[in-house]
Amino acid sequence: MVEKKFLKAIKDFNLVESKDRILVAFSGGIDSTVLTALLLKFQKYLKIEKIALAHLNHSLRGAESDLDEEFCKSFAEEKGLKIYTKKEDVKKYAKEHSMSIEEAARTVRYSFLQEIALREEFNKIATGHHLSDLIETMILWFIQGNKKGIKGFKPYEKNVIRPLFYLTKEEIRQYAEKKDIKYTVDRTNFKTDILRNKIRHDIIPLLRQINPSIEKSMLIESLFLQIDEDFIEKEVEKFSQKFLKDRITLTDIADVPEAVLYRMLTIWIYKKTGIYPSYRKIWEILKILKKSGEKSISLSRDYQLIKSYSQIIIKKKEKSKKYSYKIKTGDEVYIKEAGVIIKSYISKSINMGKLKDERKIVCFDIGEENPEFVIRNRKAGDRFLPFGQKSEKKLKDIMIELKIPKYMRDTIPILEFRNKILWVVGYKRSGHYPVTEQTKKMICFEIKEV
Amino acid sequence: MVEKKFLKAIKDFNLVESKDRILVAFSGGIDSTVLTALLLKFQKYLKIEKIALAHLNHSLRGAESDLDEEFCKSFAEEKGLKIYTKKEDVKKYAKEHSMSIEEAARTVRYSFLQEIALREEFNKIATGHHLSDLIETMILWFIQGNKKGIKGFKPYEKNVIRPLFYLTKEEIRQYAEKKDIKYTVDRTNFKTDILRNKIRHDIIPLLRQINPSIEKSMLIESLFLQIDEDFIEKEVEKFSQKFLKDRITLTDIADVPEAVLYRMLTIWIYKKTGIYPSYRKIWEILKILKKSGEKSISLSRDYQLIKSYSQIIIKKKEKSKKYSYKIKTGDEVYIKEAGVIIKSYISKSINMGKLKDERKIVCFDIGEENPEFVIRNRKAGDRFLPFGQKSEKKLKDIMIELKIPKYMRDTIPILEFRNKILWVVGYKRSGHYPVTEQTKKMICFEIKEV
Repeated sequence: MVEKKFLKAIKDFNLVESKDRILVAFSGGIDSTVLTALLLKFQKYLKIEKIALAHLNHSLRGAESDLDEEFCKSFAEEKGLKIYTKKEDVKKYAKEHSMSIEEAARTVRYSFLQEIALREEFNKIATGHHLSDLIETMILWFIQGNKKGIKGFKPYEKNVIRPLFYLTKEEIRQYAEKKDIKYTVDRTNFKTDILRNKIRHDIIPLLRQINPSIEKSMLIESLFLQIDEDFIEKEVEKFSQKFLKDRITLTDIADVPEAVLYRMLTIWIYKKTGIYPSYRKIWEILKILKKSGEKSISLSRDYQLIKSYSQIIIKKKEKSKKYSYKIKTGDEVYIKEAGVIIKSYISKSINMGKLKDERKIVCFDIGEENPEFVIRNRKAGDRFLPFGQKSEKKLKDIMIELKIPKYMRDTIPILEFRNKILWVVGYKRSGHYPVTEQTKKMICFEIKEV
Repeated sequence: MVEKKFLKAIKDFNLVESKDRILVAFSGGIDSTVLTALLLKFQKYLKIEKIALAHLNHSLRGAESDLDEEFCKSFAEEKGLKIYTKKEDVKKYAKEHSMSIEEAARTVRYSFLQEIALREEFNKIATGHHLSDLIETMILWFIQGNKKGIKGFKPYEKNVIRPLFYLTKEEIRQYAEKKDIKYTVDRTNFKTDILRNKIRHDIIPLLRQINPSIEKSMLIESLFLQIDEDFIEKEVEKFSQKFLKDRITLTDIADVPEAVLYRMLTIWIYKKTGIYPSYRKIWEILKILKKSGEKSISLSRDYQLIKSYSQIIIKKKEKSKKYSYKIKTGDEVYIKEAGVIIKSYISKSINMGKLKDERKIVCFDIGEENPEFVIRNRKAGDRFLPFGQKSEKKLKDIMIELKIPKYMRDTIPILEFRNKILWVVGYKRSGHYPVTEQTKKMICFEIKEV
């Protein structure tokens, strides 16, 4: 039965072809020793040109790890197989790369395997992952809401093959016993090993009461989830050129299906911030994309995503520092926070045409000698009197009306005189101190961009 | 908190719009009474024009069901709501329609709700499904390998809305207690209720040890699974015209992505046979589609799917009855099993040109007066001597070579003489009794299609 299933997986997924040179990821544990035994038994039948072992000593359990390595070497010798070994200080590696021990172990192990495979010309790497691993993985991701993970792993992925894909741990155990296959018992306890043990020993037996053939059911489920994922991933590629830029234009993505969009956003955010957004975060982003107006979402301690009126950008969060400058007529003040120079001067001729561009130049009839003005960024409670109106509005609402992106609102300079806002610099003047035909002397302010 | 989440679900999914007329699916249990209480509390705020209740008495628990109905009526009266009730013998309905009791209950209930909604002009039907229901449903389908089901249910579907989508059973229970909301306790035990109880009481507490916020995680997961499914379903529509026919041409579906193909096949098979194929079955079908040559798969007791060299069809399984006819020269025999007439006659002129089409006419040099031939379908052990060869081959292999579809092989007539096969009617003559230049008298056979 075990041998039949082993061969069936190989046939169904075309895992082994004639003349393959296979490197087995060999821990010395039950899965990889049974895998090796099966490959050797059917080497001729499958026309495998070469089989060898690769063992990484993770140095996680001191002398015990070294004993495991010894076991692996003598196993190889007994079977007449070449074995490649390497000792690596995984703890140290984890620390240096700020990874979990488990993540580090996997990274180091796979890079060792790929390196040996490349150097020694093995075209395939075989790992001992089996059906029980698969369903544990699926359950673990499923209950944690990791949609991407719930399909588990594939029977093959690039040059990695998993010929035990159809076999449960129990079947592997029985086979090892029947064939008297010796193996070491790995006592490493990674964090997910603890979770996996709970799933294996406490949860799956209960699930089996509901579905006695849970492994078979979930195996098929995994394969179909994989088909769906592969399909959508291919669609994602079709749209990928829309997500190469620093800014995503909303009209550009209006025709992108949501299933494609959320995947692209995930990748885009990862590229910009180095952090994968959670599904919850992505859900929030999808929600704000459907809303009009400007919205922002915190992505991490350092980054925020901003959906403005026409685009999406990712920005480093800035502590919005308060700033304040004094300015008198004749001054030229550099507002470094906003990157503009503002010049103030007295003007006696009224050139109404020039005054029309209130974004660049504004003039006021102050009627006072040598007044002092303040240029600062906004503060809570700021109000603004629109030209021609009698009552003030919240400055925030004015900024929204003016479609000033949220992330800019704290840096834009505000011109103030005697607690009245005269000008949202670069945008709009207020109705205070208007220039009329009776005006004799105007005080003007003009932006000079740096 | 409960009220906030109730309103949030309504807002997030736009479940309620002003002037809605909402019919509540009202069992009298905790979920539907809390749902009604919340809708009433926020009726004004949400600008709901009308709220009414609909209660179906399933008659499953005799007097107790009637008491529940009484409770519902007095609840409605107390709240000043109109209530529509109906009593239905669900057991009888289930029997008549060969459904499970649960399936029948759901069918009868939903058709009652839709009927009232239509007649009384309610544009929405609200049900008490909540977050705990959602994750139980997801887990139940997930561990049974029902990929389609693992996304659970939607917050809305056509005119059905589920405003408790964000609330757990525990939150609903606490709210009922706090607000002193009375409700009945339903003691119906459907089969899946037993499974659900196991999931609710035994399994979810263990899963919660791994993920304390399992409801939140799986809620988001459900939404994303739904997005993926919606996307693929839309793609399926694009290809649907390829699956309208009785036969699917392989070249027609060569460009159909696998994720679309397996969904289309599922629907197609359901339409033809009335039975939804399992994922396992669909997986087998996908496998044979990748293989060359002819394959067949049993779909049910009555149907089989046949992949021939160029197409896929579904056929009723036929017991292949043996048939046998005698034929002498001068006869014209109607082979009703194959729908052909075969004519036998003596011919003295040798028209080699005409003889070239061995599919329609064959002639033999029997050298015997008034011989009797047999026309029958194949039987086990039949062998065939190809023209110009010395040894016989299995008739089955000949049929494969001739690319005769498997489902036709048992009906095709075989011409036999003295235990030798002379002709696979309509396909190929054998090397027996060849006509040569010395032949004086030929016995010919010719197909006349009906």
